[in-house]
Amino acid sequence: MIPENLNTRAASAEEVLACVRQLCAPLPTERVPLAEALGRMLREPVLAPEDQPAFDRSAVDGFAVRLDDPGDSFRIVDEIRAGDWRPRALQPGETVRIATGGALPGEGLQVVMKEDAWLDGATVCILSRAPARNIRFRGEDCRAGRALAEAGTVLQPGTLGLLASAGHAQPLVTRLPRVLHVATGNEIVAPEQAPQPGQIRDSNSTLVRAFCQSLRIVPQQLRVGEDEAEIERAFKANAHETDLVLISGGASVGEHDFTRRVLERHGFTIHVSQTATRPGKPLIVAQREHSIAFGLPGNPLAHFVCLNLFVRAALERFAGLPARSPFHRGLLATDLKAGGGERETFWPAVWRLEKTSVALTPLPWTSSGDLTSLALANALIRVPGGTASLPARSEVECSFTSSPS
Amino acid sequence: MIPENLNTRAASAEEVLACVRQLCAPLPTERVPLAEALGRMLREPVLAPEDQPAFDRSAVDGFAVRLDDPGDSFRIVDEIRAGDWRPRALQPGETVRIATGGALPGEGLQVVMKEDAWLDGATVCILSRAPARNIRFRGEDCRAGRALAEAGTVLQPGTLGLLASAGHAQPLVTRLPRVLHVATGNEIVAPEQAPQPGQIRDSNSTLVRAFCQSLRIVPQQLRVGEDEAEIERAFKANAHETDLVLISGGASVGEHDFTRRVLERHGFTIHVSQTATRPGKPLIVAQREHSIAFGLPGNPLAHFVCLNLFVRAALERFAGLPARSPFHRGLLATDLKAGGGERETFWPAVWRLEKTSVALTPLPWTSSGDLTSLALANALIRVPGGTASLPARSEVECSFTSSPS
Repeated sequence: MIPENLNTRAASAEEVLACVRQLCAPLPTERVPLAEALGRMLREPVLAPEDQPAFDRSAVDGFAVRLDDPGDSFRIVDEIRAGDWRPRALQPGETVRIATGGALPGEGLQVVMKEDAWLDGATVCILSRAPARNIRFRGEDCRAGRALAEAGTVLQPGTLGLLASAGHAQPLVTRLPRVLHVATGNEIVAPEQAPQPGQIRDSNSTLVRAFCQSLRIVPQQLRVGEDEAEIERAFKANAHETDLVLISGGASVGEHDFTRRVLERHGFTIHVSQTATRPGKPLIVAQREHSIAFGLPGNPLAHFVCLNLFVRAALERFAGLPARSPFHRGLLATDLKAGGGERETFWPAVWRLEKTSVALTPLPWTSSGDLTSLALANALIRVPGGTASLPARSEVECSFTSSPS
Repeated sequence: MIPENLNTRAASAEEVLACVRQLCAPLPTERVPLAEALGRMLREPVLAPEDQPAFDRSAVDGFAVRLDDPGDSFRIVDEIRAGDWRPRALQPGETVRIATGGALPGEGLQVVMKEDAWLDGATVCILSRAPARNIRFRGEDCRAGRALAEAGTVLQPGTLGLLASAGHAQPLVTRLPRVLHVATGNEIVAPEQAPQPGQIRDSNSTLVRAFCQSLRIVPQQLRVGEDEAEIERAFKANAHETDLVLISGGASVGEHDFTRRVLERHGFTIHVSQTATRPGKPLIVAQREHSIAFGLPGNPLAHFVCLNLFVRAALERFAGLPARSPFHRGLLATDLKAGGGERETFWPAVWRLEKTSVALTPLPWTSSGDLTSLALANALIRVPGGTASLPARSEVECSFTSSPS
């Protein structure tokens, strides 16, 4: 349960995560073609529709002969290529030339590799006959009805290949979330515009779009000023069918109250109104029926941290992933001068794999508006409140924002 | 240099990788909008176009007063919101109300937080005055002309946000490779078709498409029989403008020679014609001018291994990544019974992060046609030839095919 007073005090990261998980349930399912299923969560088990392989197949190019036929010279009575289906009862002295993947014409056979045979017109002489039967037998890989993939599997290329081989061309997956992102602020202009004095370029819309794209989600995006009527219109026109609403704060007077007012006016209940973490203190988490909204602090680094920790947790729950900690463990590659501030801090860092371990290099960082660390950051180090410094090789908690360097 | 006799013998994995790196050079560059730049490689340094911040900004909501003005009661002469630009010389006894992100009206000021002030009409009383100036000074984050992101950076969401903030809305990146994939084989049918006896469903086209999609590449794909005229037509119509050609072998007699013949007829030089590794022995690597072709073994697991090890290496070089080993190190979570075969083996496995380390669980696997391990595999363990078994906790080399479980 979400503590009743959570929205009246600064929530810890764990409290925000617990609240988000409480508010978000797996989205409904839909069937999609395999071409659209990458990265989606499978919501049904996929069973083998037939034995795999479905028939006895030759594992090599060669000559099928009876196991009980001890001869060394055989008459070729047929040629079977992959895709052919010509059962026949081989007689002693008879052989069928067969290709890798070809369906054996019957039972009780073995395939002599072509390298061990000498072809002379319609006759083949077996030079050496090993015990190996060189057959992949029906059902050897798996039996009809066995689960090939379980519900809850995230569909990666290999899994999709497996589904294709099972003829499961329209898997049941979680539908993608509908995301609405509104960047607010009188001071922001589009990246391609020249900012006037006092203005800055809007980086958060690009960050949010790419963050969503990395999860194969296409967000709907708006950039509005802090005119309440304008955001009101935008919100009314777009927020109805939305699972996730993201409002990036501008930095004007009362930005925070502004987002809060907009959300409350549209029927959202505020569950978190600030965090005890940095960067990212002025975070709002709100809910209306099955949809969740975040008011994200406008400062770019705070925005980055809140997206990767809290919004990601919401999207994982929407997808159907089990509630799980976003934190892994790693070793500091260098000292971390954390400054000893009282708030728990998520420190931008680079992670890589060194030998068998996760190695984390903290990036220089001064304020929540500091953008430059974003060039390289692919991880956040969790630094407990009150930590003055941590020496290299310390074991720390961390969360990954993208793949290792 | 590629050894001259490489195509007359079984090449080791290292030899195939070295050959691929030799054959592939970074593709040309293009400018793309930020919305299309995720995951692409930046091919120019991006410099800060102006100081960052570009002007002295208030870090808090509050009241700007002169540093040298010792008073505790001030007359509000203006209100500055983020986005405003109204320089003025403050007189003693004057203050400007200012919002977070607002441009300071002049120099020699400090901002008193609104929590430390008492507003009384047009006058404000300062209750406590800390030494902090609460200003993010111009250039504090970085100076104009400093490199924000270096050439060679892979564009992740944070980096894209940074580029947006710098107004770099059309970054110069490596263009995407043009990929042609041809699935051959008389025995294969589309996944949505019911296979007749002797036939199997084509899983490799789905695997190749998803593999490419995971790298944000859309391949052109064809499914053809092993009729040479048919593949000839397909190839002529499609292979001209292609950087990477993938031909998935069927398993009919002479599949391997068939792919080889097609490639040679179209002017490709064969550099590798088989490997000393398993699964994946019958691999072809060929080149024509700046394009590279792979003849991939038709068996699904072999296909998976060759795509992830060798084709991935080609795509990384095309993108402009430095030549680097695809192998990391990890610890076996369980014993691995490798069987002692003489060929170097790439064993399907699941990787996860356990404590601070990479943990690898080998999956059951018998033949190169075995598909079921593909449901879960996200890594390949490199097992040296002649290895009978490896105990749990052994340190092994591995390559990752997708994110950790």
